[in-house]
Amino acid sequence: MGETWANLGVDLHLETGGEASRHGVRKGLTDALREAVRGGRLAPGTRLPSSRSLAVDLGIARNTVADAYADLVAEGWLTARQGSGTRVAMGVPPGRAEPRARGRVVSPPVRPAPPRRQGGAPTYDLTPGSPDLASFPRAEWLKAARRALAAAPHGALGYADPRGRAELRTALAEYLARARGVHADPDRIVVTAGFVHALAVMGRVLRARGEREVAVESYGLDLHWNLLHHAGLRTVPLAFDALGTDVSGLGLGPGSCSAKAVLLTPAHQFPMGVPLHPDRRAAAVDWARRAGGVIIEDDYDGEFRYDRQPVGALQGLDPEHVIYLGTASKSLAPGLRLGWMVLPSGLRDEVLAEKEATGASCGALDQLTLAEFLTSGAYDRHVRAARLRYRRRRDQLVEAVAGRAPEVRATGIAAGLHAVLELPRGTERSIVQAANWERLAVHGLSGYRHPLSTTPTRDALVVGYGTPAEHAWAGALGALGRVLP
Amino acid sequence: MGETWANLGVDLHLETGGEASRHGVRKGLTDALREAVRGGRLAPGTRLPSSRSLAVDLGIARNTVADAYADLVAEGWLTARQGSGTRVAMGVPPGRAEPRARGRVVSPPVRPAPPRRQGGAPTYDLTPGSPDLASFPRAEWLKAARRALAAAPHGALGYADPRGRAELRTALAEYLARARGVHADPDRIVVTAGFVHALAVMGRVLRARGEREVAVESYGLDLHWNLLHHAGLRTVPLAFDALGTDVSGLGLGPGSCSAKAVLLTPAHQFPMGVPLHPDRRAAAVDWARRAGGVIIEDDYDGEFRYDRQPVGALQGLDPEHVIYLGTASKSLAPGLRLGWMVLPSGLRDEVLAEKEATGASCGALDQLTLAEFLTSGAYDRHVRAARLRYRRRRDQLVEAVAGRAPEVRATGIAAGLHAVLELPRGTERSIVQAANWERLAVHGLSGYRHPLSTTPTRDALVVGYGTPAEHAWAGALGALGRVLP
Repeated sequence: MGETWANLGVDLHLETGGEASRHGVRKGLTDALREAVRGGRLAPGTRLPSSRSLAVDLGIARNTVADAYADLVAEGWLTARQGSGTRVAMGVPPGRAEPRARGRVVSPPVRPAPPRRQGGAPTYDLTPGSPDLASFPRAEWLKAARRALAAAPHGALGYADPRGRAELRTALAEYLARARGVHADPDRIVVTAGFVHALAVMGRVLRARGEREVAVESYGLDLHWNLLHHAGLRTVPLAFDALGTDVSGLGLGPGSCSAKAVLLTPAHQFPMGVPLHPDRRAAAVDWARRAGGVIIEDDYDGEFRYDRQPVGALQGLDPEHVIYLGTASKSLAPGLRLGWMVLPSGLRDEVLAEKEATGASCGALDQLTLAEFLTSGAYDRHVRAARLRYRRRRDQLVEAVAGRAPEVRATGIAAGLHAVLELPRGTERSIVQAANWERLAVHGLSGYRHPLSTTPTRDALVVGYGTPAEHAWAGALGALGRVLP
Repeated sequence: MGETWANLGVDLHLETGGEASRHGVRKGLTDALREAVRGGRLAPGTRLPSSRSLAVDLGIARNTVADAYADLVAEGWLTARQGSGTRVAMGVPPGRAEPRARGRVVSPPVRPAPPRRQGGAPTYDLTPGSPDLASFPRAEWLKAARRALAAAPHGALGYADPRGRAELRTALAEYLARARGVHADPDRIVVTAGFVHALAVMGRVLRARGEREVAVESYGLDLHWNLLHHAGLRTVPLAFDALGTDVSGLGLGPGSCSAKAVLLTPAHQFPMGVPLHPDRRAAAVDWARRAGGVIIEDDYDGEFRYDRQPVGALQGLDPEHVIYLGTASKSLAPGLRLGWMVLPSGLRDEVLAEKEATGASCGALDQLTLAEFLTSGAYDRHVRAARLRYRRRRDQLVEAVAGRAPEVRATGIAAGLHAVLELPRGTERSIVQAANWERLAVHGLSGYRHPLSTTPTRDALVVGYGTPAEHAWAGALGALGRVLP
């Protein structure tokens, strides 16, 4: 219990005066507290001052402190218990990932059929996974490309650093720390040709270490499972319940999954749309530390949260046991084929060797352009505008569903580019079929369920409200309304 | 012998009048004859008319016919024997590649050390493998990017056709047929994230078919051998002699290599700089047909030939047994990470499955830009200008060597971006060391020799005259002159 709370307010060095907005103060306080925990200045178990007294110390509103505490509880840095106040979460200090033990084979290979559109070309597209491509900032991107190419040394066009361009890794380190709470350092970042390239590389790294299986979520993309399977790994699904993916299935005890790696979508489960519960974030990290395991964090749409500050990346909790994977596919466009990994310190050489074995890298021009896009602020501006647009669409979707189909419930948090609409039991298939007749492309949830999952099935639609162009959105929403019960 | 030569001139439908230049007539005649052989209109063994009589029939210069015949002999379509005249080369008609038999393991894994620069950052760089990056057409490329992005549908920015953008495949099919004699069709083309990505995919395809080894040339890049090794394949070197790589080492008989695939650089052996002799081109194709084998053609710098029309791609001889791999790395810049495969008709699905398993694709914007670059003529203009520049450099190099170091001989054809300088026996190492003291980066040939090769060693330098920027060229040449004996 190194530090008492008495001097916490002074120690945080918060900028609260002048032009700082309430939003800015909350973020500043959250960042400062997170850094104090991460850096060890606030030891595990330390009890924090009440929100009231810290607010008085800092001269800020009590709600701002309460919000910051809530953010950090959601991210797993703090715990809040009735009668025990707010404390720094327990856990051993971050350590280096240990070499993996050989895994056992416990499940057959998985090759589920991909979810398909039923029928010909649809008029409306509400399939998930894509942002609104019509709003890709073409002119801004070209401007950034022009600036980036004008500034690039000739060597930038040659055979490349296998980690990716330094300009981009530097820009990403700054951005990911600021926007996603990632403990990033340009030397730990490896740029890839999209998220799936990064996942393919990680699958090969695990296999080269002798692993035979990877734990995954009960719901996800068969494309990802197949990629891991192709790398020689079985995928073992963890159960899913109201708190998100049940990471207690990972473990060292009897009956638990023996995988030493788990693929998670902590900020926004895909496609179920819930964040991983704070206790489970902490439990996952705790498992990784005790078992010498590794968490692969798929942070595909972490930028898009509409009701509050986004939950920070799980990687911030323990950069030595979490491999953070990000992508420009949701924030900009999948066609860029740009992704990135933030790696534990001991993993870089293995990752670079396996990346080299895929023979593939992302082109230098797109890397330089994204670096310029990030550092010039164009990326932030684009994400802010997109966030407003998607938030409005989500609100309209929820409203339309409530108005037209009271039996249907939009679940999950207000975030990302898709929503799950829970349907009356036994109706999913017929509703997808009805959508087909309306020339509306929409996916049922069943196509996203791991075939070995023991979690009870549900009937639901996964609605990608990010997908349509603006002009097509109202029509798509109308078509959806017509097919709901 | 289906067709007599009597009506050949009429049958060729040549455009010879009007504005057709001598160069254009020669190319037109070469193309028409090649097509007549490929299409079966001229059967194997058919004796062609003498150059004199065909020239009279066509109303063109005799030398033009003789040149066209020589081109096609070099490509392996025709044979020319003293006393027997010019005939269509013998060989069975192109067929479909057959499934491969399981191979035997005959050689240990290869992990040679890569060629290295000895010492710190050099002042002059004559290492091979890179074009002059300072002459990358930045402004033209940005213009093409702007036009391409303006014309692209929104869907171009989404998740992509695994074969690559149709715009690029269409442009490549036209270009490769015209410039390299490749039998191309957009449906047989797969765009990759550079040549090594394509090679990694092919390695996986072969391994998935049960192959255990691939024949390679005695000289080449350890990067490529390691990539094949990483895919689970041994590399077995074929001997090298004055006629190029000795493909008689491939075979069905006792003592020959049992590999069912061979990686070749037929137009311009890397790094030895000779083209594969016409007889050996024909023999390689003949082996592939009889053994059900496959030739992987690495056509890395086929655009750059300075003394005559480039030898056409080997793939044109038999598109069903040759996998053609091309790249923008030498003609434009390695940083683009843009490559392409032209596949036999039966191989596409296997290739796409293994490409998907690498998780990587080339970004859509670079693909669209290259398509625009090709169709607008900017690519041809750039290659023409580069050809003149590199040709001048090669001439200067040969002249400088002849003037300063009469014991040293520049070997290989006038082509590509590098030359081999044969050195007096036993001097390679000391000359590379002397270059290091002159702050000149240059590679010895020994670093490019397969460690299992039985071909006698030679002392030589591999000089990449394409690498320096224009302003650095004279200095680099001077430094080289100072270190030669």
